[in-house]
Amino acid sequence: MKSQFAEKGEEEMNVDINCDMGESFGAYRLGSDEEMMSHITSANIACGFHAGDPMVMERTISLAKNHGVSVGAHPGFPDLVGFGRRNMELSPREVRNDLIYQVGALSAFAHIEGLSLQHVKPHGQLYNLAAKDESMARAICEGILALGKNLILVALSGSKMAEIGSKSGVKMAREAFADRAYHRDGSLVSRKREGSVIHDPGRVAERVIRMVQEGKIQSIEGDLIDLEVDSICVHGDTPGAVQLAQTIRRNLIGAGIAVLPMEKFLERDL
Amino acid sequence: MKSQFAEKGEEEMNVDINCDMGESFGAYRLGSDEEMMSHITSANIACGFHAGDPMVMERTISLAKNHGVSVGAHPGFPDLVGFGRRNMELSPREVRNDLIYQVGALSAFAHIEGLSLQHVKPHGQLYNLAAKDESMARAICEGILALGKNLILVALSGSKMAEIGSKSGVKMAREAFADRAYHRDGSLVSRKREGSVIHDPGRVAERVIRMVQEGKIQSIEGDLIDLEVDSICVHGDTPGAVQLAQTIRRNLIGAGIAVLPMEKFLERDL
Amino acid sequence: MKSQFAEKGEEEMNVDINCDMGESFGAYRLGSDEEMMSHITSANIACGFHAGDPMVMERTISLAKNHGVSVGAHPGFPDLVGFGRRNMELSPREVRNDLIYQVGALSAFAHIEGLSLQHVKPHGQLYNLAAKDESMARAICEGILALGKNLILVALSGSKMAEIGSKSGVKMAREAFADRAYHRDGSLVSRKREGSVIHDPGRVAERVIRMVQEGKIQSIEGDLIDLEVDSICVHGDTPGAVQLAQTIRRNLIGAGIAVLPMEKFLERDL
Amino acid sequence: MKSQFAEKGEEEMNVDINCDMGESFGAYRLGSDEEMMSHITSANIACGFHAGDPMVMERTISLAKNHGVSVGAHPGFPDLVGFGRRNMELSPREVRNDLIYQVGALSAFAHIEGLSLQHVKPHGQLYNLAAKDESMARAICEGILALGKNLILVALSGSKMAEIGSKSGVKMAREAFADRAYHRDGSLVSRKREGSVIHDPGRVAERVIRMVQEGKIQSIEGDLIDLEVDSICVHGDTPGAVQLAQTIRRNLIGAGIAVLPMEKFLERDL
Repeated sequence: MKSQFAEKGEEEMNVDINCDMGESFGAYRLGSDEEMMSHITSANIACGFHAGDPMVMERTISLAKNHGVSVGAHPGFPDLVGFGRRNMELSPREVRNDLIYQVGALSAFAHIEGLSLQHVKPHGQLYNLAAKDESMARAICEGILALGKNLILVALSGSKMAEIGSKSGVKMAREAFADRAYHRDGSLVSRKREGSVIHDPGRVAERVIRMVQEGKIQSIEGDLIDLEVDSICVHGDTPGAVQLAQTIRRNLIGAGIAVLPMEKFLERDL
Repeated sequence: MKSQFAEKGEEEMNVDINCDMGESFGAYRLGSDEEMMSHITSANIACGFHAGDPMVMERTISLAKNHGVSVGAHPGFPDLVGFGRRNMELSPREVRNDLIYQVGALSAFAHIEGLSLQHVKPHGQLYNLAAKDESMARAICEGILALGKNLILVALSGSKMAEIGSKSGVKMAREAFADRAYHRDGSLVSRKREGSVIHDPGRVAERVIRMVQEGKIQSIEGDLIDLEVDSICVHGDTPGAVQLAQTIRRNLIGAGIAVLPMEKFLERDL
Repeated sequence: MKSQFAEKGEEEMNVDINCDMGESFGAYRLGSDEEMMSHITSANIACGFHAGDPMVMERTISLAKNHGVSVGAHPGFPDLVGFGRRNMELSPREVRNDLIYQVGALSAFAHIEGLSLQHVKPHGQLYNLAAKDESMARAICEGILALGKNLILVALSGSKMAEIGSKSGVKMAREAFADRAYHRDGSLVSRKREGSVIHDPGRVAERVIRMVQEGKIQSIEGDLIDLEVDSICVHGDTPGAVQLAQTIRRNLIGAGIAVLPMEKFLERDL
Repeated sequence: MKSQFAEKGEEEMNVDINCDMGESFGAYRLGSDEEMMSHITSANIACGFHAGDPMVMERTISLAKNHGVSVGAHPGFPDLVGFGRRNMELSPREVRNDLIYQVGALSAFAHIEGLSLQHVKPHGQLYNLAAKDESMARAICEGILALGKNLILVALSGSKMAEIGSKSGVKMAREAFADRAYHRDGSLVSRKREGSVIHDPGRVAERVIRMVQEGKIQSIEGDLIDLEVDSICVHGDTPGAVQLAQTIRRNLIGAGIAVLPMEKFLERDL
């Protein structure tokens, strides 16, 4: 997005690259955290409910710090065996409190490393649910606002979550998925459908640059649609993920776009 | 203990009364938190590992706030089915990180109510282990010091934990058990032995007053031993607990001893 | 229901009384298992997912055996903090496998006491979901049939679960709730509505007798509706529960109805 | 070991090869179960406490069945984040009941595939503890005997567990570790010490053949010590594991030793 501090005529473009991190658990390893850290600006760190544990959280915060990557919480449903990907019917108060618990726990590990949490990005099915369910979206905003005015909510661009977030007064970053196809109405094309995932790093980078520069993306139906984006989500657990992230970052910078942690270019006070 | 701010000749006596709280979990209820809150000055609140959950934590913090009771974390081993009472061989780093996680989670609930955590009191077998194991005691101090210089460690008076705590530079409150008999060497008499628990509230109050005023207690063997005490631990899950707490508090005040949260009379800067 | 072995003209009436049991967990106690055991004929024993643990399961099986009460499994969603009362979107295969796991675990405790499991009654939200969702109902039947042809499914009388159960070839008992009001369409009146729970033991017993003798119950709208019933569900965790169960049993027997474990009067081979 | 059915003069040699399996959990993958299944005769399958879940258990039982591999339970401490490798002080009754629960759960998955469990091999720290602690060893035997007379306990050859097992009347297989060095007293050389793990597949196979044929192994101190063995333990989670298992099996067969599930050559009735 264009910086709010940019002078007239000036075209200072910024974007953040975020990735889920710290999703290992005990003896189990998941993701390529070490390799990915070099290519991103914000790490969404699991907090022990859907993945992660206190040892992994300490390690991941430390890894992010060493790479100068900003840290955020990645709270999920209390469903370790389901990896937070199965829907659960929690009350809004349970969602709010589970979020506060998880963000608080991660926050302590950030604090002891001299860091503050930059953002909160809900995980998996909690993210999906909040993208369309108003009461879940409200519960998430309420939890984040209670925790602190400077904590940024990462919300799917164009979603109900983003709409509710805007109204709630929470500081917000709108995110888009680098390698996913979009429908004309701004929703993601189901992974089951052919063409839903774009594999060519060059083409992905090109789409991302257009999103940032023009706030537009070509839908799978062919139309050019609006898609405002502050942060690009990349994944660390797929083959080619590291190379993809590397290419996106390099090409963004090549196009004159600054790749920075979201806190650097989102207005601090609302 | 005598206040460090007391002028010569002045006899300003203070003591704190602490109790474990928030040990319910989901549909399960434990303890008489509401009744006990009127009679104590510090609440040790479970953090979800041995007991407690985000909903219970929110409720308990709010209850403490309404009663003007200071709040602290009561972290335990990750063993819900064993209620944190079974020994676990965790590495010092695991103990430290499990503590940071739990204190952080509770801290967030305190924060959203405009409170700060006053203290940390390890629970159950973690408490017992740290009372005699140097590496566990060190791990606990390390975690607390990393979290903040104003966080008070509650340690068994006369234990290895208290000794290590003193050396570590952590702010510390020494606690004694109101209704338990002590051996000549300062250790607690096993609950299996007759006379280990004192049931008469009047006699318990009398012993507590002597501890605070003279720093002495009569051991089960008959000798008068030293026992310095900043906080008296009462329990909320036994019959007569509420009346016992009430009597202790009333009699302490009657004896001219101020019953206050530990943070009010422990020196803030070391 | 009328026994299938009853000769023409003979009016041999039987009914079972079931109750949820073994829902304690670790240090947490729930329900009045000891008192209730004297008044029921079938115990639905929790299996560790929504409640219960190996120590509680051993104790509950032993208690049931001493009272001559038949034992069954009470599997629930893997959600201890939610007590299995929150909806979870599991795949049918996950539901089937979670059920097989839990029934297998309980079955081992029955086996070492020389008992076999009589029945399976899904718990909480799994029960509610299966009462209306065909794929959940099928998954449950599939799991039970795989485990053994003699295992009885306890299903809400008139529900989708009962309908699918009938077709699947699983042995089935239809249950009704002793103290709950029913709508004209056979569904339960929401607990939020006045009159949804009937508190007078005498009136509850009267309704139950009519269900068993005539297969009828008066709906809250006033109509007489069909409601076939093999087992009456009573609860052990409400005030007056023990007296209610006692009254129901006594009055049933007084009305000439045999109160027996369901396996005694349901046909063994389909 | 020499078969108990072998005629005098006959030299019928048999040995089993066992491997831990089904230690994945939810989204987490561990081990090379598919590749290892071709080279072993007995699978020790995790039961959900230290690793494994109902979906993984179903899959692993099915995989074993398709390879003609006998199945057994691999119960561990209730410590998922510690992978059952951290010591826990459970009472003997808790150990027995946790074992019964886990074996029962796995048994149900075996049953629905038309299989019976062949054996029980405690996992990780439960295994280590039982190898030297008499009360733990007794608790394990008690649980297995209660479950069934045909269930084989897999115990470390020469350990307290094997000694208690012999006396208890449980059917037992003594196991040795293929690639580990032994001390003169029959204990394993600590992994921290150089030479504790033997990496050359040919040399490992040679040692295994000698164990089976002569009941002897050369200790790290150089002495030849007695080591009776019915089953060889191989691991599936180290580099080269599959090739090692393959070489051992091939060389054993080449040496005229039958590689069979333990149930095929251990006497059925004691």
